[in-house]
Amino acid sequence: MDYFDHNATTPVDERVLEAMQPYFRHQFGNPSSLHQYGRLARSAIDQARHQVAELVNVSPSQVIFTSGGTEANNLAVQGSIAANPACRKVLFSSIEHASILSQAGVLEQLGCQVSRLPVEATGLLSVNALEKIVQADADENVLISIMTVNNETGVIQDIASLSRRIRKKHEHAVIHSDASQAAGKMSLDFAHLGVDMLTLSAHKMYGPKGAGALILSHGCQLEPVLWGGGHERGWRPGTENVPAIVGFGMAAQLAMDELQVNRQRLQRLQTLFENSLRENIPDAQIFSDKAPRVPSTSCFSIPRIHGEAMVMQLDQHGFAVSSGSACESGTDEPSHVLTAMGVDPDIALGAVRVSFGVYQSESDIDRFCDTLVREVRNLRCSDMAF
Amino acid sequence: MDYFDHNATTPVDERVLEAMQPYFRHQFGNPSSLHQYGRLARSAIDQARHQVAELVNVSPSQVIFTSGGTEANNLAVQGSIAANPACRKVLFSSIEHASILSQAGVLEQLGCQVSRLPVEATGLLSVNALEKIVQADADENVLISIMTVNNETGVIQDIASLSRRIRKKHEHAVIHSDASQAAGKMSLDFAHLGVDMLTLSAHKMYGPKGAGALILSHGCQLEPVLWGGGHERGWRPGTENVPAIVGFGMAAQLAMDELQVNRQRLQRLQTLFENSLRENIPDAQIFSDKAPRVPSTSCFSIPRIHGEAMVMQLDQHGFAVSSGSACESGTDEPSHVLTAMGVDPDIALGAVRVSFGVYQSESDIDRFCDTLVREVRNLRCSDMAF
Repeated sequence: MDYFDHNATTPVDERVLEAMQPYFRHQFGNPSSLHQYGRLARSAIDQARHQVAELVNVSPSQVIFTSGGTEANNLAVQGSIAANPACRKVLFSSIEHASILSQAGVLEQLGCQVSRLPVEATGLLSVNALEKIVQADADENVLISIMTVNNETGVIQDIASLSRRIRKKHEHAVIHSDASQAAGKMSLDFAHLGVDMLTLSAHKMYGPKGAGALILSHGCQLEPVLWGGGHERGWRPGTENVPAIVGFGMAAQLAMDELQVNRQRLQRLQTLFENSLRENIPDAQIFSDKAPRVPSTSCFSIPRIHGEAMVMQLDQHGFAVSSGSACESGTDEPSHVLTAMGVDPDIALGAVRVSFGVYQSESDIDRFCDTLVREVRNLRCSDMAF
Repeated sequence: MDYFDHNATTPVDERVLEAMQPYFRHQFGNPSSLHQYGRLARSAIDQARHQVAELVNVSPSQVIFTSGGTEANNLAVQGSIAANPACRKVLFSSIEHASILSQAGVLEQLGCQVSRLPVEATGLLSVNALEKIVQADADENVLISIMTVNNETGVIQDIASLSRRIRKKHEHAVIHSDASQAAGKMSLDFAHLGVDMLTLSAHKMYGPKGAGALILSHGCQLEPVLWGGGHERGWRPGTENVPAIVGFGMAAQLAMDELQVNRQRLQRLQTLFENSLRENIPDAQIFSDKAPRVPSTSCFSIPRIHGEAMVMQLDQHGFAVSSGSACESGTDEPSHVLTAMGVDPDIALGAVRVSFGVYQSESDIDRFCDTLVREVRNLRCSDMAF
């Protein structure tokens, strides 16, 4: 398998797809219907809600299904601001996904002041900066969003410790974390993380596109962003995407059951890849390699080689990698994540993100590394290096 | 097939499901990715966009894919208001779906004045009332939303004529129509309808849940409601639900290719059912039977029998029908649609909605009618009649 872009999206696990199939055909009912077709669909969603709840160790009533991570992030941020009129101070880590950062404009229109929390060169949030900013905010209501795992570098923030620090200064802070890239790669305990809201996305964990969730703490104040027929206890209207939600549930179950095996496998792949990279391309710079990272992601830059050129060159040999976030592909701007880490723009434009999957083997890595090394040499001898 | 609730949701057509399957497995890429997996997914979405565009005779660039009809309705209304700060007058027909009507609260918070346009006893919009209200608004910007086909009664509004009347008084009115229940049951030509925005939903037309679209006129002013990575030309962020969008495209194609055959079949079923109902239960009242209706829907009330009791009783015999909108099932309130038509609350609480599907046959109707007639007699002899 020549797909090394699992942070962009994953294939659907065969067991997940099998679980989904009946809900397109014979059990296709609308969960709001009172008859047997409706009840079967409702009970399938209930089961999925249990499975997703277990993944993060909450009760099913804390799970709101959405159409995906982006919608969950919007519901978390816009929904909190709508529900807390006194909260007009918003802090985003500077390495958040576009589905968080691009809400700044609409929040500012609502009279919010939106600031970005800086990160260190490692990619970890600057605790000093956080403490200063939060201290200054001690008298105000504040909403803070810090992602659990970064989609470009794989860096794991210590959300539990950051939440404690924030709450020490500011008991009533509303804390959200986007865990889209964390689920399935590390254990997640909602209460331990100490947040009020957590985002999950099915298609980043071998589930289908079209399903995500926002996990809520008990008593969390939230208004809906979309309005309609009162689905998901009023927080997310629209006929539930039953097959996708069932698939999400199964993916959550598998992610939980197979976490240890998958982590060990991914760790072996990452180590093999990065050792080979260091050995064969000694001037390659692996980002955040001193910080805790999930084992699925290696982000690196090779001096004088443009990341997108590398992506296209590898693609010609059938290998799929990325030059950063899929959502920002083709923009020709250096990654905002690497820029926030203080990476030189020339180096940042060279970034290549390789993200491994649980169906891959050591021999997949070997074949990939052979091609990578050869293509780096070719690119360096050609006009495409700069 | 004993499912008579196709207005709540439809099964996925086998050909639609077949078209979707590859996009869960081998062609699972993220359309934003630059590599082959991404390009394959992008091209699948492009094809679906063509298919959906053809269904309503627009160019593909006018199609914004959403997670469904509810999201499209929210984008249409909230997105227009956000994009047109001068527009603070909103008119909804009084028989709109909850995904339109329940936006009133959030619009009022934004300073909008939201009014409901009355309907006649037939279920058709009151043209006199519309003309009076629009005339009074002639100097103001106004947003008007009138559904093409009502989900409870099946009544078809003459959107083309209503749009012309509105624009005669008010050239710059922004007109939206929810055509979720119309697509596949009548031909839809966006330009002929004369609206600025049109909502479609895949799972009401033998496509999958999790996909819908908002069709936009050229130059229509719209802000997004959700924010993120710039997908759908900035109007709807989040990784595209590729399999669902592909399925939506195929469903649109089939709806177009098979419209005449399907209409004729549904028309036969509706006529057969209503004739049988009139013959066997002469005091049954069929709503809107004097108005133009889609042939898929028969909504009726049988004096002294509660609609939900009827639903439960038929369910015990394996027949799935509804007492109104699925989204409002179990609320024990008379339907707002029938109430707006001036139906007596006791009669409205007796409403049963039967909605036929294109895979059903005359013999399905016969079996259903036999059971219905028998159960009406049973209920009338029991405590469940009132």
